[in-house]
Amino acid sequence: MGLLGLGAVLKSGGGLEVSDYDAIISINIFIALLCSCIVIGHLLEGNRWVNESTTALVMGLLTGGVILLVTNGANSRILVFSEDLFFIYLLPPIIFNAGFQVKKKQFFRNFMTIILFGAVGTLISFVIITLGAMGLFQKLDVGPLELGDYLAIGAIFSATDSVCTLQVLNQDETPLLYSLVFGEGVVNDATSVVLFNAIENLDIGHFDALVLLNFVGKFLYLFFTSTLLGVATGLLSAYIIKKLCFARHSTDREVSIMMLMAYLSYMLSMLLDLSGILTVFFCGIVMSHYTWHNVTESSRVTTKHTFATLSFIAEIFLFLYVGMDALDIEKWKLASSRYLLLSINDFRFKGLDISTYTTYHPKKPIALSAIILGLVMVGRAAFVFPLSFLSNLSKKERRPKISFKQQIIIWWAGLMRGAVSIALAYNKFTSSGHTEVRVNAIMITSTVIVVLFSTMVFGLLTKPLLSLLIPPRTGPNTSALLSSESVLDPLLTSMMGSDFDVGQPSPQYNLQFILTAPTRSVHRLWRKFDDRFMRPVFGGRGFVPFVPGSPVERSAPDNQLGTVTEAENS
Amino acid sequence: MGLLGLGAVLKSGGGLEVSDYDAIISINIFIALLCSCIVIGHLLEGNRWVNESTTALVMGLLTGGVILLVTNGANSRILVFSEDLFFIYLLPPIIFNAGFQVKKKQFFRNFMTIILFGAVGTLISFVIITLGAMGLFQKLDVGPLELGDYLAIGAIFSATDSVCTLQVLNQDETPLLYSLVFGEGVVNDATSVVLFNAIENLDIGHFDALVLLNFVGKFLYLFFTSTLLGVATGLLSAYIIKKLCFARHSTDREVSIMMLMAYLSYMLSMLLDLSGILTVFFCGIVMSHYTWHNVTESSRVTTKHTFATLSFIAEIFLFLYVGMDALDIEKWKLASSRYLLLSINDFRFKGLDISTYTTYHPKKPIALSAIILGLVMVGRAAFVFPLSFLSNLSKKERRPKISFKQQIIIWWAGLMRGAVSIALAYNKFTSSGHTEVRVNAIMITSTVIVVLFSTMVFGLLTKPLLSLLIPPRTGPNTSALLSSESVLDPLLTSMMGSDFDVGQPSPQYNLQFILTAPTRSVHRLWRKFDDRFMRPVFGGRGFVPFVPGSPVERSAPDNQLGTVTEAENS
Repeated sequence: MGLLGLGAVLKSGGGLEVSDYDAIISINIFIALLCSCIVIGHLLEGNRWVNESTTALVMGLLTGGVILLVTNGANSRILVFSEDLFFIYLLPPIIFNAGFQVKKKQFFRNFMTIILFGAVGTLISFVIITLGAMGLFQKLDVGPLELGDYLAIGAIFSATDSVCTLQVLNQDETPLLYSLVFGEGVVNDATSVVLFNAIENLDIGHFDALVLLNFVGKFLYLFFTSTLLGVATGLLSAYIIKKLCFARHSTDREVSIMMLMAYLSYMLSMLLDLSGILTVFFCGIVMSHYTWHNVTESSRVTTKHTFATLSFIAEIFLFLYVGMDALDIEKWKLASSRYLLLSINDFRFKGLDISTYTTYHPKKPIALSAIILGLVMVGRAAFVFPLSFLSNLSKKERRPKISFKQQIIIWWAGLMRGAVSIALAYNKFTSSGHTEVRVNAIMITSTVIVVLFSTMVFGLLTKPLLSLLIPPRTGPNTSALLSSESVLDPLLTSMMGSDFDVGQPSPQYNLQFILTAPTRSVHRLWRKFDDRFMRPVFGGRGFVPFVPGSPVERSAPDNQLGTVTEAENS
Repeated sequence: MGLLGLGAVLKSGGGLEVSDYDAIISINIFIALLCSCIVIGHLLEGNRWVNESTTALVMGLLTGGVILLVTNGANSRILVFSEDLFFIYLLPPIIFNAGFQVKKKQFFRNFMTIILFGAVGTLISFVIITLGAMGLFQKLDVGPLELGDYLAIGAIFSATDSVCTLQVLNQDETPLLYSLVFGEGVVNDATSVVLFNAIENLDIGHFDALVLLNFVGKFLYLFFTSTLLGVATGLLSAYIIKKLCFARHSTDREVSIMMLMAYLSYMLSMLLDLSGILTVFFCGIVMSHYTWHNVTESSRVTTKHTFATLSFIAEIFLFLYVGMDALDIEKWKLASSRYLLLSINDFRFKGLDISTYTTYHPKKPIALSAIILGLVMVGRAAFVFPLSFLSNLSKKERRPKISFKQQIIIWWAGLMRGAVSIALAYNKFTSSGHTEVRVNAIMITSTVIVVLFSTMVFGLLTKPLLSLLIPPRTGPNTSALLSSESVLDPLLTSMMGSDFDVGQPSPQYNLQFILTAPTRSVHRLWRKFDDRFMRPVFGGRGFVPFVPGSPVERSAPDNQLGTVTEAENS
């Protein structure tokens, strides 16, 4: 349903009205493309190299190319990239679903490491990319960039896109890796957006310790209040549904309330100038721990799949969009123009033909992109290995440590840059949707190249790299286990069952749990608290009032629900 | 997810950007209101008089009032009513869900009567309201109205809103009534929109037999091509899902494809200048007959409830919106202005304060509304009773005829005017969202009054009227049966089972079916055709390839799904 927001772009970005005939054509093409992506993505599922995201990117590029040809190079995009579309419509369902479907046990077991990677790591990466850009960009004749621009570049390219990797990683085969990469991805998204906003509001003039302290304080404030708001909204939804006991017959009401409250948490967070991403992520976690258990069986199936579907559509939409946007000829021309600081309007004003003043070889953006990609790789290496070392040091003897091979995978998994980077780059380097000044055009173009290259090339190499570093287990089911189809029940099991409850460890972890008493006792304390205070009020597994014949009492719900794979989509 | 379109209004109507702080406030208020409506609607469920729609209307009015007070009478609306919002975002889910959840057996059994009421009846009502308005409006000093305006008024007030009645009617208790009112409602919506569009394109100058013939031809063309497009899209979705056999593990893909294709059918129809309402309605019917049976168990539960939920939210949104819009003070002032043909801009241009030129007594719109309400009642009576007579005449001896009491209920059920009327009125009587000329303001205001009055007063009286005309059956379950909670399984049964299949009549109808051979043989022919040609290609119940352990094979799905009531929401 991400496509419902489509009209918004059509209106805000392109200045079109939906009643406009052109806009209806665009919506039709877009929906048809979305359908094709899903069908092609499905047909190529056997193929180890591609997935829906790559398909959508390629389809976007192809469509952009066709439109370029049809309109004689006048326009490649059906829609103009709109930051609002991204932050108001596409991002919330993706992040909420991430929180809703996360394996909470793993997530909270590795909470400290995830925060270390996601927050501290992103900051390290940010510093390195900023410094590197300041040092290296000078040599290219890019144009005048200020300190604020360099800081923004650091934040923009610190935002990872782990979706591609997660489509390859298997939550069962490599639970530790999966939760680390996944958790880091979400915290990283939030961190870079918070960072970016903090930079935008920063007074660059006098940069001293006080400003830095202020910055850190604001960062922590945003982090905790955002989380709190998400938890509060989630609990409120659980309380409302439990208290009103929405009868056993109003699935629509339950689902509506869950959807609306989830979205409300995000919008409230934006209203209070907090980080909507963190809020909606924690709202998703709380909703899956409490609210989800208070609703009827049908509501559970429905919400689970609806949220996954919305997230799925939003992602494809996004990649399609990025692919289409990559061929925006006007930006490319401007980026390779010989004139600095000239805007397209200048050309128009002087009645000059922009083509005669530009060369079509996009050398500069490509050089810039190469530098940025190098910085991204260095910046990521600079925190993954040291922080993994730190994390391993702090761990009790027999808890699983992060092996060197796993460190390489974590490093690799965070190299992809995605929609968050693009959205932030547009926010920084455009004015009202059009990239008019050359240096801005170059930065946007470079961002698109980095995103395309990292998603397609790094993304394609992930599967081979993985099977090289983690040799598939022997046995008849090996290939099936590595493929995405095998992620059948674990997500559901985690939702139906053992969330937060480390008191019931799976057999093979038994020994470890006895030895890792501290972590375990925190979990045990939490569980006691949860059982004594939280669940009686907010509901949750086992705390839903008994209704004779209610679907909750029915057996084998795992089986009915467990026929789906969300991991590959979320 | 109707709320996703919210940004669109904010942008198109009010000229606001979503990144605007005000817009974020509006979205928050709106979502919070939607949640409150659902909760309050639930709390009042025991109450026989109100439902979510009425709650939403009242909440909208109250919120409008509060905003009026807070802003000192400057503005009552958070959002400006946008026709695009209505036709692009809110209407499609409502109508699609109507088609998706309809009891197809009843619908097709009474197909001729439904078409008679929905198409011919609407035309009769249209003629009477138009003629009545031409005769009666002259006496009020409304302003200059042309023939085209009168024709438009006829079309606007021929569009019924049966949602309220359907929330009271019981699909089990009164299957004939339910299917007639429901079916008529959908065909009526489509007819009035097609009628309205045909009038807009009509050359009023020389109105002769040729123009009329042209008009009828266009009407029939729109009707059939729209239906065909909907059926084709539905079949395509069934074919894609069956052919690709989307694995048993990709619920997200299946649900995405169904959602996207449904929306695509609507947008394609708009692209081809057909009636999107008819298209998406028939697309819904075909999808529930074929596509729905080709997907996994989880997808079935998910789509069923997701579509119902989206429709539910869209409806509440709509009523909230109408309630809020009703208190638009600027329109009221203008409508009671002493100056004809003066626009608000005229006042502003001349630097005059509009308040000094207006009186606050909205006599004129109220008088006009009373006339229109009278015409609506007469216009409806003028076709319900004669057409029921006709329909009864054509029926075989022992088929159930439409009794006089039932005719009264049918007449009453169509008296409510709703969102379609408002949307058409805005389309006709506004230019770019603002009602500037006085006569236009009066017409909009009158439409809002008619909608409010008919929805609230007629709507509230429906339940008492029903229990007066159809005395509740005796027995322990009587009260439960009359309440909305009782509509448990029939919807689902109709989806799981006997759709289209009149060859398996329920016992009490056995005799009738033997006697009504012609109708039955048409059904039998269809069923043969369906079984031999359609289902093998497009899937459907019993024609999904056997997959061991697939959820399709599991028993008692009715039970799992049957815990929901959609009738009250759709």
